[in-house]
Amino acid sequence: MLPTVFDAAGTTCTLRRATAADLDALITLLADDPISASRGDTGATADRSAYERAFAAIEADSAQLLLVATIDESVVATMQLTVIPGLARVGASRLQIEAVRVRADQRNRGIGAAMIRWAVEQAPALGTTLAQLTSDAARVDAHRFYERLGFSASHVGFKLTVASAPQ
Amino acid sequence: MLPTVFDAAGTTCTLRRATAADLDALITLLADDPISASRGDTGATADRSAYERAFAAIEADSAQLLLVATIDESVVATMQLTVIPGLARVGASRLQIEAVRVRADQRNRGIGAAMIRWAVEQAPALGTTLAQLTSDAARVDAHRFYERLGFSASHVGFKLTVASAPQ
Repeated sequence: MLPTVFDAAGTTCTLRRATAADLDALITLLADDPISASRGDTGATADRSAYERAFAAIEADSAQLLLVATIDESVVATMQLTVIPGLARVGASRLQIEAVRVRADQRNRGIGAAMIRWAVEQAPALGTTLAQLTSDAARVDAHRFYERLGFSASHVGFKLTVASAPQ
Repeated sequence: MLPTVFDAAGTTCTLRRATAADLDALITLLADDPISASRGDTGATADRSAYERAFAAIEADSAQLLLVATIDESVVATMQLTVIPGLARVGASRLQIEAVRVRADQRNRGIGAAMIRWAVEQAPALGTTLAQLTSDAARVDAHRFYERLGFSASHVGFKLTVASAPQ
């Protein structure tokens, strides 16, 4: 199922599993987003080992699929998929979509929509019958985007930052 | 860390990992909830094998922790925890709380609050720095409950039901 190729406003875009070689581009994508930056993703060199540990944890977990979209081998977007088994909805597994980011200079070309549509299309093959995601309440444009793609804003998303464990 | 014992309005409540022997009680808990029932969790006998498959998938996934709270060895509540690694927030793993249910005759005794507090307390030991959950927009009382426990309703939760895979 991967890599897959799609058209983004006339440009060929490739969606594939992220590798460790993509990590710098992924850190830059996070830092490029004002809301992410406000949560600490500033791309600081001192944080690189934390991102490396996180990338290794994602790769080691078979329920995770971290993706990048590339144009001419340059990373322009990312998203992370997680398969979560559960009892509710008659034992439905959920496909959770997290950390959707598109590089600022590549927005409004359909790259994000193509990624989300691909994720939803893969849901049955991944054994999941419900796709879910949360979006910061401040991302009003993103909310319209997800509704256009068929998602329903049926839930309230709650977050609580907890103290870090001692390293 | 488990089992752990807490007080619920003067009654001793035990929180422990769910076992296959709890499955009938868990199915009944889901069917007991009007919103879950409207999504198909009616407790129908024909659905039991789907719940069994889901329970086995949860048990097989080391990122999952399905819990039950019991009083006198009777299941009165449940919740599911999932550890999700990620790059955002400087490589923060998230502790996702799903499928929180308290038996109708045991509500308003602090059982749900004790379970959520326990989950948040465990977050650092589970390597997570962010607890998150979504709650159906119709569950207005639940929203106040999570806010009292320190959660912020900072996000919108989007869901999309997708076609089932052929069995």
